[in-house]
Amino acid sequence: MSGPVVITAALTGVLATRDQCPAIPYTPREIGEEAKRAADAGASIVHIHARSPEGGPEWRVEVFAEILSEVRSRTDVIINFSTGAIGVPVEQRVAHIRDLKPEIGALNMGSMNYAIYSKKKKAFYHDHVFANPFQDIRFFLEAMNEAGVRPELECFDTGHIANTVPLIDMGILRPPYQFSLIMGVLGGIPGTTRHLVDQVDTLPEGSLWQVIGIGLEQWPLVASAITMGGNVRVGLEDNFYVEQGLMAKSNGELVEKAARMVRDLGRNVASIAESRRILCLQ
Amino acid sequence: MSGPVVITAALTGVLATRDQCPAIPYTPREIGEEAKRAADAGASIVHIHARSPEGGPEWRVEVFAEILSEVRSRTDVIINFSTGAIGVPVEQRVAHIRDLKPEIGALNMGSMNYAIYSKKKKAFYHDHVFANPFQDIRFFLEAMNEAGVRPELECFDTGHIANTVPLIDMGILRPPYQFSLIMGVLGGIPGTTRHLVDQVDTLPEGSLWQVIGIGLEQWPLVASAITMGGNVRVGLEDNFYVEQGLMAKSNGELVEKAARMVRDLGRNVASIAESRRILCLQ
Amino acid sequence: MSGPVVITAALTGVLATRDQCPAIPYTPREIGEEAKRAADAGASIVHIHARSPEGGPEWRVEVFAEILSEVRSRTDVIINFSTGAIGVPVEQRVAHIRDLKPEIGALNMGSMNYAIYSKKKKAFYHDHVFANPFQDIRFFLEAMNEAGVRPELECFDTGHIANTVPLIDMGILRPPYQFSLIMGVLGGIPGTTRHLVDQVDTLPEGSLWQVIGIGLEQWPLVASAITMGGNVRVGLEDNFYVEQGLMAKSNGELVEKAARMVRDLGRNVASIAESRRILCLQ
Amino acid sequence: MSGPVVITAALTGVLATRDQCPAIPYTPREIGEEAKRAADAGASIVHIHARSPEGGPEWRVEVFAEILSEVRSRTDVIINFSTGAIGVPVEQRVAHIRDLKPEIGALNMGSMNYAIYSKKKKAFYHDHVFANPFQDIRFFLEAMNEAGVRPELECFDTGHIANTVPLIDMGILRPPYQFSLIMGVLGGIPGTTRHLVDQVDTLPEGSLWQVIGIGLEQWPLVASAITMGGNVRVGLEDNFYVEQGLMAKSNGELVEKAARMVRDLGRNVASIAESRRILCLQ
Repeated sequence: MSGPVVITAALTGVLATRDQCPAIPYTPREIGEEAKRAADAGASIVHIHARSPEGGPEWRVEVFAEILSEVRSRTDVIINFSTGAIGVPVEQRVAHIRDLKPEIGALNMGSMNYAIYSKKKKAFYHDHVFANPFQDIRFFLEAMNEAGVRPELECFDTGHIANTVPLIDMGILRPPYQFSLIMGVLGGIPGTTRHLVDQVDTLPEGSLWQVIGIGLEQWPLVASAITMGGNVRVGLEDNFYVEQGLMAKSNGELVEKAARMVRDLGRNVASIAESRRILCLQ
Repeated sequence: MSGPVVITAALTGVLATRDQCPAIPYTPREIGEEAKRAADAGASIVHIHARSPEGGPEWRVEVFAEILSEVRSRTDVIINFSTGAIGVPVEQRVAHIRDLKPEIGALNMGSMNYAIYSKKKKAFYHDHVFANPFQDIRFFLEAMNEAGVRPELECFDTGHIANTVPLIDMGILRPPYQFSLIMGVLGGIPGTTRHLVDQVDTLPEGSLWQVIGIGLEQWPLVASAITMGGNVRVGLEDNFYVEQGLMAKSNGELVEKAARMVRDLGRNVASIAESRRILCLQ
Repeated sequence: MSGPVVITAALTGVLATRDQCPAIPYTPREIGEEAKRAADAGASIVHIHARSPEGGPEWRVEVFAEILSEVRSRTDVIINFSTGAIGVPVEQRVAHIRDLKPEIGALNMGSMNYAIYSKKKKAFYHDHVFANPFQDIRFFLEAMNEAGVRPELECFDTGHIANTVPLIDMGILRPPYQFSLIMGVLGGIPGTTRHLVDQVDTLPEGSLWQVIGIGLEQWPLVASAITMGGNVRVGLEDNFYVEQGLMAKSNGELVEKAARMVRDLGRNVASIAESRRILCLQ
Repeated sequence: MSGPVVITAALTGVLATRDQCPAIPYTPREIGEEAKRAADAGASIVHIHARSPEGGPEWRVEVFAEILSEVRSRTDVIINFSTGAIGVPVEQRVAHIRDLKPEIGALNMGSMNYAIYSKKKKAFYHDHVFANPFQDIRFFLEAMNEAGVRPELECFDTGHIANTVPLIDMGILRPPYQFSLIMGVLGGIPGTTRHLVDQVDTLPEGSLWQVIGIGLEQWPLVASAITMGGNVRVGLEDNFYVEQGLMAKSNGELVEKAARMVRDLGRNVASIAESRRILCLQ
C-alpha cells in the first residue's frame, strides 16, 4: 500500500449558497475559521474561492489578501487559490496569483459543457460552455511560472489530461505534474471507479494526482482513489453531505470522514509538512 | 469474430484544401464522383460537408441538394450530412437536414478545445473552443427526430458519450444509438487502442459504433476497432495517406485499404444493403 | 449508487491456526457461535470449512452436519460450504454437498500455482499447484446441480472466469452466475482496484459477484467492490486484522468494519432475507 | 507510433500434425528450411520444438543440435528453444538449453488448465493441468541464467505475469524482462484486444513483450499488439490459416502476412540485427 494521503478541503466554491448549506463560509474570517477546522481534522491543503459577503463571486486582490491573512493567522495549511470562472476576463482571474503567490493555483486544462440536469424535472438547470482554450491555459500557466506558484492541473475529462502534452513539449509545464481529476460533472467524465482507473492510466509518467468527486459520488471516488495510491479532495464546494440525509456542519466534518476512510483502507493522513514534501512544494 | 464491418468514407471535410491534397472534392459533381469511387471500394456510407468551388465552407441547402442528386445518380450509398461548425448559427447548420432528410445527420455531442499543435515549430496552429452546449445538441436532435434522420452521435471525449444520458432520460434520444468515437484531435481523447477500449466501455448498452481516427493514427485505430467488433470511417477529411509518404489519389484508395484490413482480420465488408440492416436504417 | 451489499463471512478456512489468530473457530460449536456473531454484525452468508478439534482439515459429513445444526440453532444466515482442497479425492470433497444440500457450495474454476512468498526471507513458504481440471469442475458442478445447491464460482485469475464459457455452452452452468473474485493470492491475479475492474469486465452478462481479498489488501478491495456495485467477503479465513496491528477478536469485528464501510460509501447492508432475494436463492 | 516490430515464427510446435497441416516441419532439415523461409519473409526469431520423424515430441540434445546446425547453415535468425511440456521431467526439458545455449529459451510462468473444447460436439478434447510450480520456474530460470540464455517469460494469464514479482525480488529474474503474452488458450486469458490491454498494463516497468494468439484469434491480436507498440509471433505452431479457409503452405506465408500488417499499421519490420538490438541480446 502507498504512502500518506494528502487531503485537500475545498472550503466554499462559488456556486452553492448558504440557503443550500448554512455552513458555507463567505467572508475572509469565516473562510479562515473553516480552514482551521479543516486542518485540525486532517486537511493539509485548502482550496479557496473568494466570495462577496452575500456569497457572490469576488476577484479583488485585497479580498484574497485578507483571506490569506485570516488563514495564516490560524494554521500553516497549504493554500490553493482558484482561477476558474465562466465569463470573467483572464487578467482579473490571475491578479491574486501574481500578487499573493499562494503555494498552489488552480489551472483549468480544457473546455467542456458544464451542466446540471434534474432527472425529476427532466430539465437542465445549468448549461454553460466552460471555455478554456489553449491561449488561456498558457496565459495562466506562464503567470504561475513567473510567480513561482505550482499549477494544479484541473482535468474534467480525458482530453484535458492529454492537453498537457503540448505544454510539456514547449517546456512551459514542468514536473512534478500535479493533477486534479474532477469526476461526475455533467459535460465531463462520469464519476465511476472504472473511469478513475482510465484517467490515472492517461497521466504522464511520475504525476501526482488527487480525485475530486462532485455530490453523492464523492465518497466512493475518495475510497477508490485511496486504494489506487492517490490523494483526495473533499469539502463543501463539492458536496454537503457526510452521508445521505446528513448535511455537514463544517468542512471539518467532511475532512474527518475522509481521514477515517484513509485509515480504514490502511494508509495514513499526511501532515501539512509531509504534504509539502510529497508534493515537492519548496 | 463479429459480423460485417460498415465502412464510412468522409469524402471532403472543410479544413483541408486541395493545396494539401489534390484529390479532395469541392463541387457537388466532384463529391458525387468520389462517393462512387468510395462505394465501389467498399464504403456503404459517405459523410459529406458542402464546400464552395474554392473549397470554403458552404451551408446553402441548394448546394446540399445538388450533392445529393450527384451522389444518387451514381450510387445507392447511405448519405450522412455534417452539421458541425465553429461560429455558424445553428439554424443555418440544420436547414439541409430538415429539407433533404438524409438517412444520417452528424450531431456533435459536447464542447472541447479543437486545436492543432506543431512539435516542430513548438506552436499552436488552430486553437478554438468547439462549443456545443446542451441547448444546441437538443436543437439538432429534435430537428433530426422531426425529419426522421438518424443522429450520428459524434463524441470526441469520454464526457461527450456521457452527455447522452440526460437526452436518453428525457426520451428525445432513442435507440439504436449510433456513435462515432473520434480520437486523436488535440483537445479530445488521445487516439490509442487503450483509449478506444475505454470509450467503448462507456457506451450505453446496445450501442452501434465506429471509430474515426485523425491523421497518422487512423490506421491503427481502424485495426483496433475491427478487432473489437466496431465499424470504421476513413476518407480524405480525416487522413490523406494510404501509408506514410503515399498520399491517396482518391477516397476510394483509402476505402480499399480499409476493406483489405477488414478481410485480413477475419471479418467481411458490409454491403450497402447489409449496412442499412445492421444500422436499422428503414 | 447500487442496491444493498451482501456481506459474506469466511469464518475459519483451513490454512490459518489459532497460534496465528486465537479467534479462529475449530469445532462445530465454535463455528456456530462465530456464525451468530458474524450475522449479528451484518453478514448474511457464512462460508465454512470443517476442521478437526486440533485445527486440521476435516471432510466427514457428520462433522459438516453438526456444523449445520450448530449454525441453524443460532441464526437463519445463508450457509456456503467449501469443496476446495489440494490432494483430497473429489468424491470426498463433495459428499457433504450431496447429503446436506447447503444453499451454496464453493466451486473452484481453474488451476494455478498457490504460493506464499516472504520478502523478508526471500523464500517461498508454500508452493503448490492448485489443480482443478475441467473434469473435476464438471464433477462438482453436476453434483451441485443434482443437489439443488448454488455453485459459487471461485475465480483466482482471468482465465478462471473464461472457463465458465464451455460450461455455459454445455448447459450445465445456468444463470444466475454467482462469482467470487479472489484476488491477491500469489499464483493468481494481483489484488488491485484496476485488476478488479478488469475481472468485472470479463464476467458473463448478468453475473452476480463479490470480491475476496487476501490479507492486507482486503480492505481496499472491499472498498473498491462496494463502489463498483459488487458484494464483499471478509472473515478470519482471509485476513485477521481490523487494521494494521489490530487483530480481530471475532469474525463479527471484521463484518462490523465491512458494514461501516458499506454505509460510508452510500450503500446499505443487505439483510439475510434481502440477500436471498438478490442472489435468487429460492 | 513505435519502432520496428520483432516478428517471431513458431515453426512447428508439438500438438499439431501433418495430417492437420502438411506444411508442418518435423525433421531438423525441414525445420531449417522453414526457418529460412520465415526469415526471408521477415521473421527475426524462430521458436522451435524438436519432433521425432513421425511428429512426436523429442527432447534429445543431439536432435536440438542438429536443428541448430540446419538453421544456422541457412540464416542468422535468432533461435528460441522451447522447454514446455506436460509430464516430462524438468532436467530433460532443460538439457538442450544448458548444452546448446540458444539466444532465447522459453520459460512457462505459471500453472493453468490447458484444454480444448468443441462447441459443435459439446465436449472437451484436451483437458490437462499444465503444472509449472515456482520450484520448476526457478529451476529453469537458474539454468538459463547459468547458460547465459535469455528467458522468454510465457504468460497465459494475469497471475503468470504477477509471478515474476518474487523472482525479481530474489534477484534471479533480471531486466530486460521479455514477455510473451499467450492469449486464447482455454484455461488462460481470452484472446481479445481489451484483455491484451489489461495484460500489458500488468507488466513490470520497462518490459519487452510480444503477443501470441492461438487459432483464428491470432490475426486480430497481431493487429492490436502492433497498434500498442508490441511485437508479434505467428507460425504453424499457433495457427495454420492465412485467412479463413486458406491454409498456409509454409511458415513464410504467415510471416509475410504479419509483415504486411506491420507496414499497413505504420511500423517497420525489424531486421535480425535490429531485433538483437531491440531485445538487448548481446
